[in-house]
Amino acid sequence: MRQGPSPAQRWIGIEVRSLGGGEAVLELCTRPEMQNSAEMVHGGFIALLADSAMGSAMGSVLPEGVRHPSFDLKVNFIAPGRIGERLRAVAKVIHSGRRTGMAECRLLGEDGRLVATATATFAVLPPTSDQNEA
Amino acid sequence: MRQGPSPAQRWIGIEVRSLGGGEAVLELCTRPEMQNSAEMVHGGFIALLADSAMGSAMGSVLPEGVRHPSFDLKVNFIAPGRIGERLRAVAKVIHSGRRTGMAECRLLGEDGRLVATATATFAVLPPTSDQNEA
Amino acid sequence: MRQGPSPAQRWIGIEVRSLGGGEAVLELCTRPEMQNSAEMVHGGFIALLADSAMGSAMGSVLPEGVRHPSFDLKVNFIAPGRIGERLRAVAKVIHSGRRTGMAECRLLGEDGRLVATATATFAVLPPTSDQNEA
Amino acid sequence: MRQGPSPAQRWIGIEVRSLGGGEAVLELCTRPEMQNSAEMVHGGFIALLADSAMGSAMGSVLPEGVRHPSFDLKVNFIAPGRIGERLRAVAKVIHSGRRTGMAECRLLGEDGRLVATATATFAVLPPTSDQNEA
Repeated sequence: MRQGPSPAQRWIGIEVRSLGGGEAVLELCTRPEMQNSAEMVHGGFIALLADSAMGSAMGSVLPEGVRHPSFDLKVNFIAPGRIGERLRAVAKVIHSGRRTGMAECRLLGEDGRLVATATATFAVLPPTSDQNEA
Repeated sequence: MRQGPSPAQRWIGIEVRSLGGGEAVLELCTRPEMQNSAEMVHGGFIALLADSAMGSAMGSVLPEGVRHPSFDLKVNFIAPGRIGERLRAVAKVIHSGRRTGMAECRLLGEDGRLVATATATFAVLPPTSDQNEA
Repeated sequence: MRQGPSPAQRWIGIEVRSLGGGEAVLELCTRPEMQNSAEMVHGGFIALLADSAMGSAMGSVLPEGVRHPSFDLKVNFIAPGRIGERLRAVAKVIHSGRRTGMAECRLLGEDGRLVATATATFAVLPPTSDQNEA
Repeated sequence: MRQGPSPAQRWIGIEVRSLGGGEAVLELCTRPEMQNSAEMVHGGFIALLADSAMGSAMGSVLPEGVRHPSFDLKVNFIAPGRIGERLRAVAKVIHSGRRTGMAECRLLGEDGRLVATATATFAVLPPTSDQNEA
């Protein structure tokens, strides 16, 4: 499950730069089809990148097979992402408990400016439990 | 700018079902390439759909040319989205002020179950101001 | 535990107007000592009222003895609260699952204007488990 | 306006430990009247402390007279606060723009454990504008 990127990450073009010990760095090279009506990167792709990065960071501190669906994602948009630029998400686990976890994320543009920040909370579920109901 | 869907909405396959008077209904028919590692819809697409729906709802109450970048997106994931199912986002403006606006959204599965809820806040910017800095 | 208001609710002066079936209406009569530096109601008291109302609503759908600590509180401030006015919080459970729950809340001024909205997520814990670690 | 604590801070017993350059450290010595029904610190006081700390941090980077009402407060509760313990909020400005600002906060118990994290966004308003409508 954690051996490689998900179909969604592959389709969107999210690349894992580093992962381990509760930290993850993921990148997304933005493309014209990600444009919103203001000709900047649609905020939804920034949310998607942040969600992926925080989920990866969280997975890196849990035993194999333990699932960790997010039940909460919060993104603060600070500066727009430019089409064509490579966005970088740096995610870190803040809390990893028996039942819940929490991570936060910084999203940076190619010039290092802060594009967005994000937080996510996760349910931590043993391998045998039913994921379909939180 | 508000005459049609953005490139991002077209690429992802988001369809506007109804729009006007501060309310918007958008749908997304989910596909295998939107799968996360748990074989459900990646939460990022749910965030993207919610962001689009709330932005559309907000735009419907503002004069032509007034921009409304979101600076905050919060999604609560309640039940996973299934690959292949059509997700429906119903967004409504809660507040539309001189400088800021706020909307909320329900996301439903094909069987009517509640998949997620979301809120967003927006900056309301006159046509001439600079969008690159919030 | 749920028979009456908590010490915090009594101290602040929060009154339960109605409670049951996943809904709660709580009121707070604001006082001069709740003033912020702009001479309006400090947002913290609005957060406190919202948290209380959503916690009460959540408790009303759970069996006796089941604890439900919140792990997430989000407040959107829309209009300032005026010192001396009675604020009303109307909270409703949106989701009540085996492990988590979610509620939302509207906060209204005496004239019915929307002062704030809020959401909260809860862990649902059986009576015997340890509350000190989420 | 920024010369001293607000009436709300004085009443609750919030003390400013340090303030300047976009950072603020505030403390709250919790008391029995802040107890929730689980006999821990009511989450509302943690929200109140976080809101105060982030507002103070934000104010420290703005010119005298510029108001900065928060329109968004998000708190993630990680470990309960114990009655009688001194809680410490460490807040930092993440973004300070022409129209909006953003801060984040860590809340720590006396033993250094992470009790909560929080973020807030602010409207930045010139001295003459009307604060009653965002």
